[in-house]
Amino acid sequence: MGTTQLEAAPEPKYWHLKTVIGEALDSDFTVGEVLPNERDLAARFGVARATLRQALEQLELEGRLQRRRGVGTTVAPPRVGVDVSTTQHSWPGMGEDGWQSVDRAADAAPAAVARLLELAPGEQVHVVRRLRVTDGQTVAAELLYVPAGSVPALTDADAPDPVGTATHARGVLRELGRLALEGQDRSVELGSARADDAKELDRLPGAPVLVVTTRYLSAGRTAAVAVATYRADTCRLTFGDSGDLAMAS
Amino acid sequence: MGTTQLEAAPEPKYWHLKTVIGEALDSDFTVGEVLPNERDLAARFGVARATLRQALEQLELEGRLQRRRGVGTTVAPPRVGVDVSTTQHSWPGMGEDGWQSVDRAADAAPAAVARLLELAPGEQVHVVRRLRVTDGQTVAAELLYVPAGSVPALTDADAPDPVGTATHARGVLRELGRLALEGQDRSVELGSARADDAKELDRLPGAPVLVVTTRYLSAGRTAAVAVATYRADTCRLTFGDSGDLAMAS
Repeated sequence: MGTTQLEAAPEPKYWHLKTVIGEALDSDFTVGEVLPNERDLAARFGVARATLRQALEQLELEGRLQRRRGVGTTVAPPRVGVDVSTTQHSWPGMGEDGWQSVDRAADAAPAAVARLLELAPGEQVHVVRRLRVTDGQTVAAELLYVPAGSVPALTDADAPDPVGTATHARGVLRELGRLALEGQDRSVELGSARADDAKELDRLPGAPVLVVTTRYLSAGRTAAVAVATYRADTCRLTFGDSGDLAMAS
Repeated sequence: MGTTQLEAAPEPKYWHLKTVIGEALDSDFTVGEVLPNERDLAARFGVARATLRQALEQLELEGRLQRRRGVGTTVAPPRVGVDVSTTQHSWPGMGEDGWQSVDRAADAAPAAVARLLELAPGEQVHVVRRLRVTDGQTVAAELLYVPAGSVPALTDADAPDPVGTATHARGVLRELGRLALEGQDRSVELGSARADDAKELDRLPGAPVLVVTTRYLSAGRTAAVAVATYRADTCRLTFGDSGDLAMAS
């Protein structure tokens, strides 16, 4: 694929290059294979390094390529479908849901979460940190914000200041589970990984992530809010009747 | 906010700058306001233009800023919640769902869609193009793939080759609506806008988008597949019990 054909294309050059490389990934490469370095690739396709980099960034955004520190650019496996249905109606931590409690802290909720929970600015809540592991890979990091009013039976010994262990985190979830769950609302939006989430997800800070916000409703009000950060490169979030949409790419 | 404080931060410089600018957006700017140009901003925060640009890109990814051709960088309004629940169980085009049919073409489905529909490679299907408009803004562009077998009563006159009008598109939807809908599966993943979608959505090609794939099930098989591209900068996709999660940012 020489320079001429790329220059004749009416689309931006990197866009056409992206399609060409995408086809080459299908035909000439296998999943996990390391791509040649940027200089060799640019030479192979007869383009400037900047153009090549734009095309590779697009393919990374679309989940076709992975860039990993110390490894280089590899051909990505198909994205993993992760169920985010709200149809099961269960509190976090109930049953085998693939989430692991990490720890518990007392902290102020972010402004947007505080509004949902109808908290005064700066009011401290229980913050339970959890990780979602699918097929041995950490696919999401979550912060669950639980106001003291939602877990009234929790004692100071149950919730040590400032940070408690996974056992303390599970204690908060257990108390929360005593409430009657009336409903769950969920939203998905694009975000960028905070430094701490990025580390858990083995991504660089600022990497695009899918942010799933869940509001748990009980007794006519918001009893807890979870903000989960999913890897956007490797995950496809699924919901609906069968809980998974098999969409091999 | 001078250079000294930024250099003392342990995080990447652009990351701290992002937080600082984010706070300035809250306190010093209103929604829709145009930001000073990059040179003035870089001088104000005492950083290199490259660092500033990284911070602005992050804020754009998080939906805090919008970059529009011919306007510049403006403070974005809160993202609009767009319901993508599957709980209603209705065929596309039934009822007032905010979608507008644009046209209908005969075309081969992309490989991943063809697999879901169990089509032979290159087999032609009806492709109905639709736009979703919320509050006067086009928030999504969709291609709905309908195999001939799902709409057997459709005549050649109903489906002119190669491209038909909005009326023809609605004809395909009407025929599809005669089938018994057994279920809907949906997935959300990160993608980049194709040139045609980007134009409809008033974005640049390659802009990050949320790709919502819906599989419509009837008689134990996939009767149609919709691939919808939502603006990731302005949309928050909602689902669950109340169909919307009010999450003012």
